[in-house]
Amino acid sequence: MSHENEQIVLASRPEGMPTHQNFTYETIDTKPPQQGEVVVKSLYISVDPYMRGRMSDQKSYVEPFQLNQVVSGGVVGEVVESQNDSFNVGDKVFGMLGWRRFNVVPAEQIRKVDGEAAPLSAYLSVLGLTGLTAYFGLLNIGKPKEGETVVVSGAAGAVGMVVGQIAKIQGAHVVGIAGTDKKVQYLVEELGFDSAINYKTVDNMQSALEGLCPNGVDVYFDNVGGEISDAVLNLLNPFARIPLCGAISSYNRTDGDLGPRVQTKLIKSRAGIQGFIVGDYADRFSEGAKHLAKWLSEGKLVNEETIVEGFDNVPDAFLGLFSGENLGKQLVKVADPEY
Amino acid sequence: MSHENEQIVLASRPEGMPTHQNFTYETIDTKPPQQGEVVVKSLYISVDPYMRGRMSDQKSYVEPFQLNQVVSGGVVGEVVESQNDSFNVGDKVFGMLGWRRFNVVPAEQIRKVDGEAAPLSAYLSVLGLTGLTAYFGLLNIGKPKEGETVVVSGAAGAVGMVVGQIAKIQGAHVVGIAGTDKKVQYLVEELGFDSAINYKTVDNMQSALEGLCPNGVDVYFDNVGGEISDAVLNLLNPFARIPLCGAISSYNRTDGDLGPRVQTKLIKSRAGIQGFIVGDYADRFSEGAKHLAKWLSEGKLVNEETIVEGFDNVPDAFLGLFSGENLGKQLVKVADPEY
Repeated sequence: MSHENEQIVLASRPEGMPTHQNFTYETIDTKPPQQGEVVVKSLYISVDPYMRGRMSDQKSYVEPFQLNQVVSGGVVGEVVESQNDSFNVGDKVFGMLGWRRFNVVPAEQIRKVDGEAAPLSAYLSVLGLTGLTAYFGLLNIGKPKEGETVVVSGAAGAVGMVVGQIAKIQGAHVVGIAGTDKKVQYLVEELGFDSAINYKTVDNMQSALEGLCPNGVDVYFDNVGGEISDAVLNLLNPFARIPLCGAISSYNRTDGDLGPRVQTKLIKSRAGIQGFIVGDYADRFSEGAKHLAKWLSEGKLVNEETIVEGFDNVPDAFLGLFSGENLGKQLVKVADPEY
Repeated sequence: MSHENEQIVLASRPEGMPTHQNFTYETIDTKPPQQGEVVVKSLYISVDPYMRGRMSDQKSYVEPFQLNQVVSGGVVGEVVESQNDSFNVGDKVFGMLGWRRFNVVPAEQIRKVDGEAAPLSAYLSVLGLTGLTAYFGLLNIGKPKEGETVVVSGAAGAVGMVVGQIAKIQGAHVVGIAGTDKKVQYLVEELGFDSAINYKTVDNMQSALEGLCPNGVDVYFDNVGGEISDAVLNLLNPFARIPLCGAISSYNRTDGDLGPRVQTKLIKSRAGIQGFIVGDYADRFSEGAKHLAKWLSEGKLVNEETIVEGFDNVPDAFLGLFSGENLGKQLVKVADPEY
C-alpha cells in the first residue's frame, strides 16, 4: 500500500529563538516495509524543550539533528502495515520516530502501548518519557522526605506538573514557579501544590520564595535555569538536592547566559546539583511506569495535556513551548486511529 | 601556674580582601584549669581559606566568628597542665582551638596525636583535616576510576596537593592548575602529576586544558571557583563528578562573582557538582586517617608544608593564602615542645 507522506526537516539551525523558517515540509514517498518492518501512522507527536538542543550543532548527550534531515522525537502511532510477526495492523505503538505522517521502521524501534489502559496520548505524557523524567529525577536525585520543601520551576510544564504531584505524594511541602496567573491557580487548586508564584509578575522572586518556603529549600527540581534558579539557589538548606532537568530559559540565549556563580552557595549548603536525562534510567523504566500508572489510576496523579490538531501545526506547537503557551504536556494530534 | 598569654581577635569584618586591620592582638590572663580541663600550649597553628567565610556575617555551615572574640581553627599543641586523668603533661594534642598561645579547654575538645608516628605538623596537614578533606572529597564524590582524567584546581595548595596524589594512587591521569611556574614544576616533578598549568600565564585556559585532557575531564576537584572553573566545566565528560571543596577566587570578591551559568553544561554532560565539608564525614575520619598514614609511610604521598615562625605572623600567614604564597599546607610554628 502506498501512503501520501509528508515530513518536517530542519532547514536551518536556529540562532536564538527558533522560527518557522528553521523548518520545511517535504512530500516524500513511503517505501513498502521490508521483512521485519512495520508502517506506523502517526497519531500523536510530542514536542519537547530538549529538542532545541538537538537543533544546534553542539556536542551533547544526543547527536544534533542533521540539516535537511527529518526532525524526530516521541510519537504514538498505529501499525497500518506489518511485515513483522510481533506486530499486527491496528496495534498502537510508541517510538522515537520522525516528524512524519508515516514512519517505516524495524520492530526494534517501537514498543506496543495499551490504549485500553490509558488514553493513547498519556504514553507521550505522564506514562511516557515525561512522567519517567519527573519520577526518576525527583525520587533518585531529589529524594524528598516527608515534610521537606520541594520547589519546582517550569511547574506548569509537562515534567514540572508531574514532579510537584509526586512530591506531594511523598508528603513534601511543594512550591511551584510558573509564568501565568492561570497556571499558578491551576497548580494550587487542581494539582494540590501548597503554593505557586508567577515569576513574570512577582516583584522580588527571592523574597517571595522566602515567604513561601519558611523552612528553606530541600529539593529544587530545575527545569528552567536563569534568574529563577539564581534566586532559588540562595535559599538552599544544608544537603539540598537539585535535580537538573532542563534550562529552557537558556536554550535560546545568545548573550552567554551570565549569572552569579554557584560554587560558594553550594559549599555553604553542602548542596548538590546533578544533571540527568531520562535515558540514564532506561533499565528501570518499567518500575517507573508501574508506579505512575498506579498513581494515575488511583487519582493521585492528574494528567494535563495541551493538544493542538494537525500535522501542519507541529512547528507551532514546538515554538509555543518557549513562550509557555502549554499547560502540561504539549502534543500534536495528527490523526485518529483507523482501527 | 600562670602563663603569659596572648590571643588574636577579629577586630572588624573584612570587606573584600582581609587586611591586618581586621585583627588585633590582646594580652589576656590564663585562668588555672578547672577539674577536667587541661592547658594546651600552641605549637602549630593552621590557617585555612575557609576561615575567610567565618569572618563574614553570613549564614553558612559554621557560625561566623564574633567581633572582638578570638579567631579559632586547627591547632596542634602540648599539654602543659592537666586536671584531667586522661591527659598528662607533655601529651601532644590536636583541637579546634583559639588563636592563642595557651588554650584552657575541657578534654572533650582535644584528642591525642602521636609525635613519634609522624611529625606533629602533619596532624594539621596530610594526616589532619586537610588530608581528610582531600580523601573524602575525591574518593566519595569524585570516585576516580583507573584511566580517568582528574583535574585539580588550587593544585599546589594544601588540599589540592593531596587530591592529585591520591588520584595518581587510583591510577588516574592527573592535571593540576596552579599559580606559579615553580608550583607547576613541583607538581609534575616532585608529586608525579601528569601535567600542570600556570593559570596566571596561560593564554587560553580552555584550549590549554583541552591539550592536556585529550579524553575530556571525568573528575574536577574544585578548590577555586571563578574563571578557572568556568573553563573546566566546558570540558566535562558524560557523568563527570565535581567535588566542590572551595572557591578561594570568590571569597574576597565584591562584584557579585558573575560567570556563565552552569545548568546547560551540567545537563549536556549529566554531570554533578556536590558541595561538601570534611565534617560531613566525621564518622569515618579514622578510616581516612589510616589510609593517609599508610600512603605516607609507604612514600606514595608526599607531605609539603610552608611553615612560618612566630605567633606574631599568624595574620600574615592567613593573608598569604589569598595571594598563593604557600606551597602545600600553610602553618605557623608558635613554639617548640617543652617535653
